Amino acid sequence: MSQETIHQLREKAKQWTIEAGQLIKKSMHKPFEVDTKLDRKDLVTEVDRKTEQFFIDKIHETYPDHKVLGEEGMGDEVQSLDGTVWIIDPIDGTMNFIHQERFFAISIGIYIDGVGEIGIIYDVMADDLYEGTLGEGAYKNGQRLKPIDPNKALEDALIGLNNSWSIPNRKLNEEKIHDLVRKVRGTRSYGSAALEFAYIAEGIIDAYITMRLAPWDIAAGMVIVGEVGGITTRVDGTEINMLTGNTVICSNQAIHEELISFIETK
Amino acid sequence: MSQETIHQLREKAKQWTIEAGQLIKKSMHKPFEVDTKLDRKDLVTEVDRKTEQFFIDKIHETYPDHKVLGEEGMGDEVQSLDGTVWIIDPIDGTMNFIHQERFFAISIGIYIDGVGEIGIIYDVMADDLYEGTLGEGAYKNGQRLKPIDPNKALEDALIGLNNSWSIPNRKLNEEKIHDLVRKVRGTRSYGSAALEFAYIAEGIIDAYITMRLAPWDIAAGMVIVGEVGGITTRVDGTEINMLTGNTVICSNQAIHEELISFIETK
Repeated sequence: MSQETIHQLREKAKQWTIEAGQLIKKSMHKPFEVDTKLDRKDLVTEVDRKTEQFFIDKIHETYPDHKVLGEEGMGDEVQSLDGTVWIIDPIDGTMNFIHQERFFAISIGIYIDGVGEIGIIYDVMADDLYEGTLGEGAYKNGQRLKPIDPNKALEDALIGLNNSWSIPNRKLNEEKIHDLVRKVRGTRSYGSAALEFAYIAEGIIDAYITMRLAPWDIAAGMVIVGEVGGITTRVDGTEINMLTGNTVICSNQAIHEELISFIETK
Repeated sequence: MSQETIHQLREKAKQWTIEAGQLIKKSMHKPFEVDTKLDRKDLVTEVDRKTEQFFIDKIHETYPDHKVLGEEGMGDEVQSLDGTVWIIDPIDGTMNFIHQERFFAISIGIYIDGVGEIGIIYDVMADDLYEGTLGEGAYKNGQRLKPIDPNKALEDALIGLNNSWSIPNRKLNEEKIHDLVRKVRGTRSYGSAALEFAYIAEGIIDAYITMRLAPWDIAAGMVIVGEVGGITTRVDGTEINMLTGNTVICSNQAIHEELISFIETK
Protein backbone atom coordinates (compact mmCIF):
# COMPACT_ATOMS: atom_id res chain seq x y z
CA MET A 1 0.00 0.00 0.00
CA SER A 2 1.41 3.40 -0.93
CA GLN A 3 2.10 5.98 1.77
CA GLU A 4 -0.52 8.19 0.14
CA THR A 5 -3.15 5.46 0.50
CA ILE A 6 -2.13 5.04 4.14
CA HIS A 7 -2.60 8.77 4.71
CA GLN A 8 -6.08 8.61 3.16
CA LEU A 9 -6.91 5.65 5.34
CA ARG A 10 -5.72 7.50 8.44
CA GLU A 11 -7.81 10.58 7.62
CA LYS A 12 -10.91 8.42 7.15
CA ALA A 13 -10.22 6.64 10.43
CA LYS A 14 -9.82 9.95 12.25
CA GLN A 15 -13.00 11.33 10.76
CA TRP A 16 -15.01 8.27 11.85
CA THR A 17 -13.39 8.38 15.28
CA ILE A 18 -14.49 11.96 15.85
CA GLU A 19 -17.99 11.08 14.63
CA ALA A 20 -18.11 8.06 16.92
CA GLY A 21 -17.00 10.30 19.81
CA GLN A 22 -19.95 12.58 19.13
CA LEU A 23 -22.33 9.61 19.16
CA ILE A 24 -20.87 8.44 22.47
CA LYS A 25 -21.25 11.89 24.00
CA LYS A 26 -24.86 12.07 22.91
CA SER A 27 -25.58 8.64 24.35
CA MET A 28 -24.39 9.80 27.77
CA HIS A 29 -27.44 11.97 28.25
CA LYS A 30 -29.74 8.98 27.95
CA PRO A 31 -29.96 5.92 30.19
CA PHE A 32 -28.20 2.90 28.71
CA GLU A 33 -27.98 -0.78 29.55
CA VAL A 34 -24.94 -2.21 31.31
CA ASP A 35 -24.10 -5.93 31.11
CA THR A 36 -21.34 -7.78 32.85
CA LYS A 37 -19.35 -9.64 30.23
CA LEU A 38 -17.22 -12.16 32.07
CA ASP A 39 -17.57 -11.09 35.67
CA ARG A 40 -18.80 -8.11 37.66
CA LYS A 41 -15.56 -6.21 36.98
CA ASP A 42 -15.85 -6.63 33.21
CA LEU A 43 -18.58 -4.39 31.94
CA VAL A 44 -20.04 -3.63 28.56
CA THR A 45 -22.77 -1.25 27.55
CA GLU A 46 -24.98 -0.99 24.53
CA VAL A 47 -22.94 2.13 23.70
CA ASP A 48 -19.83 -0.03 23.29
CA ARG A 49 -21.75 -2.28 20.90
CA LYS A 50 -23.36 0.53 18.91
CA THR A 51 -20.04 2.30 18.54
CA GLU A 52 -18.35 -0.86 17.29
CA GLN A 53 -21.18 -1.41 14.82
CA PHE A 54 -20.78 2.19 13.61
CA PHE A 55 -17.14 1.50 12.71
CA ILE A 56 -17.88 -1.89 11.16
CA ASP A 57 -20.55 -0.44 8.90
CA LYS A 58 -18.31 2.41 7.76
CA ILE A 59 -15.31 0.16 7.17
CA HIS A 60 -17.19 -2.60 5.32
CA GLU A 61 -18.97 -0.07 3.14
CA THR A 62 -15.86 1.88 2.23
CA TYR A 63 -13.24 -0.87 2.25
CA PRO A 64 -15.02 -4.17 1.56
CA ASP A 65 -11.74 -6.11 1.57
CA HIS A 66 -10.66 -4.88 5.03
CA LYS A 67 -11.31 -6.96 8.13
CA VAL A 68 -12.37 -5.76 11.57
CA LEU A 69 -11.23 -7.26 14.85
CA GLY A 70 -13.31 -5.59 17.55
CA GLU A 71 -13.69 -5.95 21.29
CA GLU A 72 -17.39 -6.66 21.14
CA GLY A 73 -16.93 -9.45 18.58
CA MET A 74 -19.27 -7.98 16.00
CA GLY A 75 -16.58 -7.72 13.33
CA ASP A 76 -15.04 -10.46 11.24
CA GLU A 77 -13.59 -13.82 12.14
CA VAL A 78 -9.97 -12.75 12.07
CA GLN A 79 -7.66 -15.77 11.95
CA SER A 80 -4.63 -14.03 10.51
CA LEU A 81 -3.26 -10.54 10.08
CA ASP A 82 -2.94 -10.89 6.31
CA GLY A 83 -4.32 -7.91 4.43
CA THR A 84 -5.66 -4.83 6.18
CA VAL A 85 -7.10 -5.37 9.65
CA TRP A 86 -8.73 -2.71 11.80
CA ILE A 87 -8.29 -3.56 15.47
CA ILE A 88 -10.89 -1.62 17.39
CA ASP A 89 -11.86 -0.91 20.94
CA PRO A 90 -14.97 1.26 20.68
CA ILE A 91 -14.73 2.28 24.36
CA ASP A 92 -11.48 1.46 26.12
CA GLY A 93 -12.09 1.96 29.83
CA THR A 94 -15.76 1.01 29.93
CA MET A 95 -15.79 1.11 33.74
CA ASN A 96 -14.62 4.72 33.59
CA PHE A 97 -17.19 5.45 30.90
CA ILE A 98 -19.99 4.18 33.15
CA HIS A 99 -18.69 5.39 36.48
CA GLN A 100 -16.81 8.54 35.63
CA GLU A 101 -18.08 9.69 32.25
CA ARG A 102 -14.45 10.53 31.43
CA PHE A 103 -11.01 8.87 31.18
CA PHE A 104 -12.11 6.51 28.39
CA ALA A 105 -10.98 6.38 24.76
CA ILE A 106 -11.73 5.07 21.31
CA SER A 107 -8.76 3.01 20.14
CA ILE A 108 -8.19 2.19 16.46
CA GLY A 109 -5.14 0.34 15.18
CA ILE A 110 -4.76 -0.38 11.48
CA TYR A 111 -2.44 -3.25 10.65
CA ILE A 112 -1.35 -4.18 7.14
CA ASP A 113 0.02 -7.69 6.73
CA GLY A 114 0.74 -7.77 10.43
CA VAL A 115 2.52 -4.42 10.62
CA GLY A 116 1.01 -1.64 12.73
CA GLU A 117 0.76 1.26 10.29
CA ILE A 118 -1.72 3.59 11.98
CA GLY A 119 -2.75 4.16 15.58
CA ILE A 120 -5.50 6.50 16.79
CA ILE A 121 -6.49 7.02 20.42
CA TYR A 122 -9.24 9.52 21.11
CA ASP A 123 -9.91 10.70 24.65
CA VAL A 124 -13.53 11.56 23.93
CA MET A 125 -14.35 13.81 26.89
CA ALA A 126 -11.04 15.69 26.90
CA ASP A 127 -11.31 15.94 23.09
CA ASP A 128 -7.66 14.89 22.77
CA LEU A 129 -6.77 12.93 19.66
CA TYR A 130 -3.49 11.04 19.58
CA GLU A 131 -2.28 9.53 16.32
CA GLY A 132 0.75 7.76 15.03
CA THR A 133 1.77 6.62 11.56
CA LEU A 134 4.60 4.13 11.19
CA GLY A 135 7.80 6.01 10.36
CA GLU A 136 6.11 9.41 10.41
CA GLY A 137 5.91 10.27 14.10
CA ALA A 138 3.11 10.72 16.61
CA TYR A 139 0.85 13.68 17.18
CA LYS A 140 -1.55 14.97 19.81
CA ASN A 141 -4.21 17.29 18.43
CA GLY A 142 -2.04 17.94 15.40
CA GLN A 143 1.07 18.85 17.44
CA ARG A 144 4.01 16.53 16.95
CA LEU A 145 4.98 14.70 20.13
CA LYS A 146 8.64 14.91 21.09
CA PRO A 147 10.71 11.75 21.50
CA ILE A 148 10.45 10.57 25.11
CA ASP A 149 13.50 11.03 27.33
CA PRO A 150 16.13 8.49 26.20
CA ASN A 151 17.99 8.86 29.51
CA LYS A 152 15.06 8.27 31.86
CA ALA A 153 16.14 6.42 35.03
CA LEU A 154 13.80 3.98 36.73
CA GLU A 155 14.15 5.92 40.00
CA ASP A 156 12.66 8.95 38.30
CA ALA A 157 9.88 7.08 36.52
CA LEU A 158 6.13 7.17 37.03
CA ILE A 159 4.64 3.77 36.30
CA GLY A 160 1.07 2.90 35.39
CA LEU A 161 0.37 -0.08 37.63
CA ASN A 162 -2.93 -1.15 39.13
CA ASN A 163 -3.21 -2.58 42.63
CA SER A 164 -4.40 -5.84 41.02
CA TRP A 165 -0.74 -6.67 40.33
CA SER A 166 0.77 -5.58 43.63
CA ILE A 167 -1.54 -7.74 45.73
CA PRO A 168 -1.11 -11.53 45.69
CA ASN A 169 -2.39 -12.70 42.30
CA ARG A 170 -2.31 -15.68 39.99
CA LYS A 171 -0.16 -14.15 37.29
CA LEU A 172 3.07 -12.92 38.87
CA ASN A 173 5.25 -12.84 41.95
CA GLU A 174 3.95 -9.77 43.76
CA GLU A 175 7.05 -9.45 45.93
CA LYS A 176 9.16 -8.34 43.00
CA ILE A 177 6.44 -5.84 42.12
CA HIS A 178 6.75 -4.47 45.66
CA ASP A 179 10.45 -3.88 45.01
CA LEU A 180 9.52 -2.08 41.81
CA VAL A 181 6.96 0.12 43.58
CA ARG A 182 9.59 1.06 46.16
CA LYS A 183 12.17 1.81 43.48
CA VAL A 184 10.20 4.07 41.14
CA ARG A 185 9.25 7.67 41.80
CA GLY A 186 5.56 6.81 41.89
CA THR A 187 2.73 4.76 40.46
CA ARG A 188 -0.52 5.83 38.85
CA SER A 189 -3.65 4.06 37.69
CA TYR A 190 -6.18 5.57 35.32
CA GLY A 191 -8.29 2.60 34.27
CA SER A 192 -7.86 2.82 30.49
CA ALA A 193 -5.04 0.95 28.76
CA ALA A 194 -5.33 3.08 25.64
CA LEU A 195 -4.96 6.28 27.66
CA GLU A 196 -2.00 4.88 29.58
CA PHE A 197 -0.31 4.20 26.21
CA ALA A 198 -1.15 7.75 25.10
CA TYR A 199 0.29 9.11 28.36
CA ILE A 200 3.51 7.16 27.76
CA ALA A 201 3.72 8.68 24.29
CA GLU A 202 3.37 12.12 25.87
CA GLY A 203 5.98 11.27 28.50
CA ILE A 204 3.63 11.95 31.42
CA ILE A 205 4.04 8.37 32.60
CA ASP A 206 7.04 6.26 31.64
CA ALA A 207 5.65 2.75 31.60
CA TYR A 208 2.53 0.66 31.95
CA ILE A 209 2.49 -2.91 33.16
CA THR A 210 -0.45 -5.26 33.09
CA MET A 211 -0.95 -8.98 32.85
CA ARG A 212 -4.08 -9.15 30.77
CA LEU A 213 -4.76 -7.18 27.63
CA ALA A 214 -6.50 -7.96 24.38
CA PRO A 215 -5.27 -6.86 20.93
CA TRP A 216 -7.79 -3.99 20.76
CA ASP A 217 -6.45 -2.54 24.03
CA ILE A 218 -2.97 -2.06 22.62
CA ALA A 219 -3.06 -2.09 18.79
CA ALA A 220 -3.26 1.70 18.44
CA GLY A 221 -1.06 2.49 21.42
CA MET A 222 1.82 0.34 20.17
CA VAL A 223 2.04 2.33 16.94
CA ILE A 224 1.86 5.70 18.69
CA VAL A 225 4.33 4.84 21.45
CA GLY A 226 6.72 3.27 18.95
CA GLU A 227 6.96 6.56 17.08
CA VAL A 228 8.38 8.46 20.08
CA GLY A 229 10.93 5.95 21.34
CA GLY A 230 8.77 3.61 23.37
CA ILE A 231 8.52 -0.15 23.14
CA THR A 232 5.76 -2.68 23.82
CA THR A 233 6.41 -6.35 24.54
CA ARG A 234 5.05 -9.20 26.59
CA VAL A 235 6.36 -9.03 30.16
CA ASP A 236 9.10 -11.53 29.34
CA GLY A 237 10.36 -9.24 26.59
CA THR A 238 8.99 -11.32 23.72
CA GLU A 239 6.92 -9.99 20.88
CA ILE A 240 3.22 -9.20 21.26
CA ASN A 241 0.88 -11.55 19.38
CA MET A 242 -1.82 -9.33 17.90
CA LEU A 243 -4.28 -12.24 17.55
CA THR A 244 -4.35 -13.29 21.23
CA GLY A 245 -4.36 -11.91 24.76
CA ASN A 246 -1.00 -10.74 26.05
CA THR A 247 0.84 -9.70 29.15
CA VAL A 248 2.16 -6.23 28.46
CA ILE A 249 5.00 -3.91 29.36
CA CYS A 250 4.85 -0.71 27.39
CA SER A 251 7.60 1.70 28.33
CA ASN A 252 10.24 4.16 27.51
CA GLN A 253 13.02 2.06 25.92
CA ALA A 254 15.50 3.39 28.46
CA ILE A 255 13.87 1.47 31.32
CA HIS A 256 12.34 -1.46 29.47
CA GLU A 257 14.97 -4.09 30.25
CA GLU A 258 15.21 -3.07 33.90
CA LEU A 259 11.42 -3.24 34.24
CA ILE A 260 11.39 -6.77 32.86
CA SER A 261 13.82 -7.81 35.60
CA PHE A 262 11.08 -7.08 38.16
CA ILE A 263 8.59 -9.43 36.52
CA GLU A 264 8.50 -13.05 37.56
CA THR A 265 5.46 -14.81 36.15
CA LYS A 266 3.86 -17.80 37.82
CA MET B 1 -18.93 36.33 60.42
CA SER B 2 -22.05 36.99 58.35
CA GLN B 3 -22.88 34.78 55.40
CA GLU B 4 -22.48 37.84 53.17
CA THR B 5 -18.93 38.36 54.42
CA ILE B 6 -18.23 34.69 53.81
CA HIS B 7 -19.47 35.05 50.24
CA GLN B 8 -17.19 38.05 49.69
CA LEU B 9 -14.29 36.10 51.13
CA ARG B 10 -15.03 33.19 48.80
CA GLU B 11 -15.18 35.42 45.74
CA LYS B 12 -11.80 36.98 46.63
CA ALA B 13 -10.32 33.54 47.18
CA LYS B 14 -11.61 32.35 43.82
CA GLN B 15 -10.28 35.41 42.06
CA TRP B 16 -6.80 34.95 43.53
CA THR B 17 -6.92 31.24 42.75
CA ILE B 18 -7.59 31.90 39.07
CA GLU B 19 -4.82 34.51 39.04
CA ALA B 20 -2.42 32.09 40.72
CA GLY B 21 -3.36 29.46 38.14
CA GLN B 22 -2.38 31.87 35.36
CA LEU B 23 0.98 32.51 37.04
CA ILE B 24 1.58 28.77 37.33
CA LYS B 25 0.74 28.23 33.66
CA LYS B 26 3.12 30.99 32.61
CA SER B 27 5.91 29.53 34.75
CA MET B 28 5.62 26.21 32.92
CA HIS B 29 7.14 27.65 29.78
CA LYS B 30 10.35 28.56 31.62
CA PRO B 31 12.81 26.24 33.33
CA PHE B 32 12.36 26.14 37.10
CA GLU B 33 14.29 24.68 40.01
CA VAL B 34 13.19 21.44 41.66
CA ASP B 35 14.29 20.59 45.22
CA THR B 36 13.64 17.43 47.15
CA LYS B 37 12.02 18.37 50.43
CA LEU B 38 12.25 15.33 52.65
CA ASP B 39 13.27 12.61 50.25
CA ARG B 40 13.47 11.99 46.52
CA LYS B 41 9.75 11.30 46.32
CA ASP B 42 8.83 14.61 48.00
CA LEU B 43 9.46 17.40 45.56
CA VAL B 44 9.03 21.14 45.67
CA THR B 45 9.67 23.75 43.01
CA GLU B 46 10.20 27.47 43.12
CA VAL B 47 6.76 27.68 41.50
CA ASP B 48 5.20 26.15 44.63
CA ARG B 49 6.97 28.76 46.76
CA LYS B 50 6.15 31.73 44.53
CA THR B 51 2.51 30.70 44.35
CA GLU B 52 2.26 30.40 48.12
CA GLN B 53 3.90 33.83 48.50
CA PHE B 54 1.38 35.26 46.04
CA PHE B 55 -1.49 34.13 48.26
CA ILE B 56 0.20 35.25 51.47
CA ASP B 57 0.81 38.75 50.12
CA LYS B 58 -2.78 39.09 48.91
CA ILE B 59 -4.27 37.76 52.13
CA HIS B 60 -2.11 39.80 54.50
CA GLU B 61 -2.69 42.96 52.50
CA THR B 62 -6.47 42.52 52.30
CA TYR B 63 -7.19 40.75 55.58
CA PRO B 64 -4.42 41.67 58.04
CA ASP B 65 -6.05 39.72 60.87
CA HIS B 66 -6.27 36.43 58.90
CA LYS B 67 -3.63 33.75 59.29
CA VAL B 68 -2.14 31.54 56.59
CA LEU B 69 -1.13 27.92 57.06
CA GLY B 70 0.68 26.92 53.88
CA GLU B 71 2.49 23.85 52.66
CA GLU B 72 5.74 25.68 52.01
CA GLY B 73 5.81 27.18 55.51
CA MET B 74 6.03 30.78 54.36
CA GLY B 75 2.82 31.78 56.10
CA ASP B 76 2.18 32.36 59.79
CA GLU B 77 2.99 30.30 62.83
CA VAL B 78 -0.44 28.76 63.24
CA GLN B 79 -0.83 27.23 66.71
CA SER B 80 -4.61 27.26 66.84
CA LEU B 81 -7.55 27.55 64.50
CA ASP B 82 -8.99 30.55 66.32
CA GLY B 83 -10.03 33.34 63.99
CA THR B 84 -9.85 33.01 60.21
CA VAL B 85 -7.19 30.66 58.88
CA TRP B 86 -6.44 30.06 55.20
CA ILE B 87 -5.05 26.56 54.73
CA ILE B 88 -3.23 26.52 51.40
CA ASP B 89 -1.54 24.09 49.11
CA PRO B 90 -0.23 26.20 46.23
CA ILE B 91 0.40 23.09 44.09
CA ASP B 92 -1.14 19.86 45.29
CA GLY B 93 0.43 17.08 43.26
CA THR B 94 3.84 18.63 42.72
CA MET B 95 5.19 15.42 41.21
CA ASN B 96 2.44 15.56 38.59
CA PHE B 97 3.16 19.26 38.04
CA ILE B 98 6.81 18.49 37.29
CA HIS B 99 6.39 15.21 35.49
CA GLN B 100 3.04 15.54 33.78
CA GLU B 101 2.28 19.24 33.60
CA ARG B 102 -1.30 18.31 34.49
CA PHE B 103 -3.32 16.55 37.23
CA PHE B 104 -2.30 19.08 39.91
CA ALA B 105 -4.43 21.60 41.77
CA ILE B 106 -4.44 24.71 43.92
CA SER B 107 -6.20 23.91 47.19
CA ILE B 108 -7.59 26.63 49.46
CA GLY B 109 -9.56 25.93 52.64
CA ILE B 110 -10.84 28.79 54.76
CA TYR B 111 -11.56 27.86 58.35
CA ILE B 112 -13.24 30.17 60.84
CA ASP B 113 -12.76 29.28 64.50
CA GLY B 114 -11.96 25.74 63.44
CA VAL B 115 -14.95 25.27 61.14
CA GLY B 116 -14.35 24.67 57.43
CA GLU B 117 -16.45 27.37 55.78
CA ILE B 118 -15.01 27.51 52.25
CA GLY B 119 -13.17 25.04 50.06
CA ILE B 120 -11.71 25.74 46.62
CA ILE B 121 -9.88 23.22 44.45
CA TYR B 122 -8.65 24.40 41.08
CA ASP B 123 -7.43 21.91 38.50
CA VAL B 124 -5.24 24.43 36.73
CA MET B 125 -4.63 22.69 33.41
CA ALA B 126 -8.17 21.37 32.98
CA ASP B 127 -9.44 24.81 34.10
CA ASP B 128 -11.94 23.11 36.42
CA LEU B 129 -12.82 25.00 39.60
CA TYR B 130 -14.53 23.12 42.41
CA GLU B 131 -15.92 25.08 45.35
CA GLY B 132 -17.91 24.38 48.45
CA THR B 133 -19.42 26.66 51.07
CA LEU B 134 -20.58 25.19 54.36
CA GLY B 135 -24.34 24.64 54.21
CA GLU B 136 -24.64 25.99 50.69
CA GLY B 137 -23.56 23.09 48.50
CA ALA B 138 -20.66 22.38 46.18
CA TYR B 139 -20.10 23.49 42.60
CA LYS B 140 -17.89 22.65 39.65
CA ASN B 141 -17.43 25.52 37.23
CA GLY B 142 -20.55 27.15 38.59
CA GLN B 143 -22.73 24.03 38.17
CA ARG B 144 -24.11 22.62 41.40
CA LEU B 145 -22.85 19.13 42.14
CA LYS B 146 -25.51 16.54 42.90
CA PRO B 147 -25.47 14.64 46.19
CA ILE B 148 -23.38 11.48 45.77
CA ASP B 149 -25.23 8.16 45.64
CA PRO B 150 -26.48 7.41 49.18
CA ASN B 151 -26.95 3.74 48.28
CA LYS B 152 -23.49 3.05 46.86
CA ALA B 153 -22.31 -0.49 47.66
CA LEU B 154 -18.64 -1.21 48.25
CA GLU B 155 -18.70 -3.86 45.51
CA ASP B 156 -19.61 -1.14 43.01
CA ALA B 157 -17.12 1.41 44.27
CA LEU B 158 -14.00 2.83 42.66
CA ILE B 159 -11.40 3.62 45.30
CA GLY B 160 -8.47 6.01 45.11
CA LEU B 161 -5.65 3.93 46.56
CA ASN B 162 -1.97 4.08 45.71
CA ASN B 163 0.21 0.97 45.53
CA SER B 164 2.16 2.38 48.50
CA TRP B 165 -0.57 1.05 50.78
CA SER B 166 -1.14 -2.32 49.14
CA ILE B 167 2.52 -3.35 49.38
CA PRO B 168 4.01 -4.18 52.79
CA ASN B 169 4.40 -0.84 54.60
CA ARG B 170 4.96 0.59 58.04
CA LYS B 171 1.54 2.09 58.51
CA LEU B 172 -1.05 -0.63 58.04
CA ASN B 173 -1.73 -4.31 57.58
CA GLU B 174 -1.57 -4.71 53.83
CA GLU B 175 -3.40 -8.04 53.86
CA LYS B 176 -6.65 -6.37 54.77
CA ILE B 177 -6.04 -3.87 51.98
CA HIS B 178 -5.69 -6.81 49.59
CA ASP B 179 -9.15 -7.97 50.66
CA LEU B 180 -10.44 -4.49 49.99
CA VAL B 181 -8.86 -4.36 46.52
CA ARG B 182 -10.48 -7.70 45.70
CA LYS B 183 -13.85 -6.54 47.00
CA VAL B 184 -14.24 -3.20 45.23
CA ARG B 185 -15.00 -2.69 41.57
CA GLY B 186 -11.62 -1.10 40.95
CA THR B 187 -8.87 1.16 42.21
CA ARG B 188 -7.42 4.31 40.74
CA SER B 189 -4.46 6.54 41.56
CA TYR B 190 -4.06 10.08 40.24
CA GLY B 191 -1.29 11.51 42.42
CA SER B 192 -3.11 14.57 43.80
CA ALA B 193 -5.04 14.36 47.07
CA ALA B 194 -6.98 17.52 46.30
CA LEU B 195 -8.12 16.15 42.94
CA GLU B 196 -9.08 12.82 44.49
CA PHE B 197 -11.31 14.75 46.93
CA ALA B 198 -12.77 16.71 44.01
CA TYR B 199 -13.41 13.45 42.14
CA ILE B 200 -15.24 12.05 45.19
CA ALA B 201 -17.40 15.17 45.26
CA GLU B 202 -18.22 14.56 41.60
CA GLY B 203 -18.95 10.90 42.29
CA ILE B 204 -16.36 9.67 39.78
CA ILE B 205 -14.51 7.84 42.54
CA ASP B 206 -16.20 6.84 45.77
CA ALA B 207 -13.40 6.97 48.29
CA TYR B 208 -9.78 7.85 48.83
CA ILE B 209 -7.56 6.23 51.41
CA THR B 210 -4.10 7.34 52.39
CA MET B 211 -1.96 7.17 55.48
CA ARG B 212 -0.13 10.46 55.29
CA LEU B 213 -1.70 13.81 54.51
CA ALA B 214 -1.10 17.32 55.78
CA PRO B 215 -3.86 19.83 56.57
CA TRP B 216 -3.33 21.71 53.29
CA ASP B 217 -3.91 18.51 51.30
CA ILE B 218 -7.43 18.09 52.68
CA ALA B 219 -8.72 21.40 54.09
CA ALA B 220 -10.54 22.42 50.91
CA GLY B 221 -11.60 18.94 49.92
CA MET B 222 -13.27 18.23 53.25
CA VAL B 223 -15.60 21.21 52.84
CA ILE B 224 -16.48 20.37 49.23
CA VAL B 225 -17.02 16.65 49.84
CA GLY B 226 -19.04 17.36 52.98
CA GLU B 227 -21.51 19.39 50.94
CA VAL B 228 -22.49 16.45 48.70
CA GLY B 229 -22.83 13.71 51.29
CA GLY B 230 -19.23 12.62 51.76
CA ILE B 231 -17.30 12.32 54.97
CA THR B 232 -13.63 12.66 55.88
CA THR B 233 -12.08 11.10 58.98
CA ARG B 234 -8.87 9.54 60.16
CA VAL B 235 -8.70 5.88 59.14
CA ASP B 236 -9.95 4.82 62.59
CA GLY B 237 -13.06 6.93 62.11
CA THR B 238 -11.97 9.71 64.47
CA GLU B 239 -12.02 13.39 63.63
CA ILE B 240 -9.33 15.01 61.49
CA ASN B 241 -7.00 17.37 63.37
CA MET B 242 -6.47 20.33 61.05
CA LEU B 243 -3.21 21.34 62.78
CA THR B 244 -1.32 18.07 62.30
CA GLY B 245 -0.73 15.28 59.80
CA ASN B 246 -3.50 12.72 59.51
CA THR B 247 -4.34 9.34 58.14
CA VAL B 248 -7.36 9.85 55.89
CA ILE B 249 -10.42 8.08 54.60
CA CYS B 250 -12.58 10.38 52.55
CA SER B 251 -15.61 8.63 51.13
CA ASN B 252 -19.20 8.45 50.27
CA GLN B 253 -20.95 8.10 53.66
CA ALA B 254 -22.67 4.93 52.47
CA ILE B 255 -19.40 2.96 52.45
CA HIS B 256 -17.41 4.81 55.11
CA GLU B 257 -17.92 2.41 58.01
CA GLU B 258 -17.30 -0.65 55.86
CA LEU B 259 -14.09 0.87 54.50
CA ILE B 260 -12.83 1.48 58.03
CA SER B 261 -13.28 -2.23 58.77
CA PHE B 262 -10.54 -2.95 56.19
CA ILE B 263 -7.99 -0.73 57.91
CA GLU B 264 -5.77 -2.18 60.59
CA THR B 265 -3.00 0.22 61.52
CA LYS B 266 0.33 -0.94 62.88
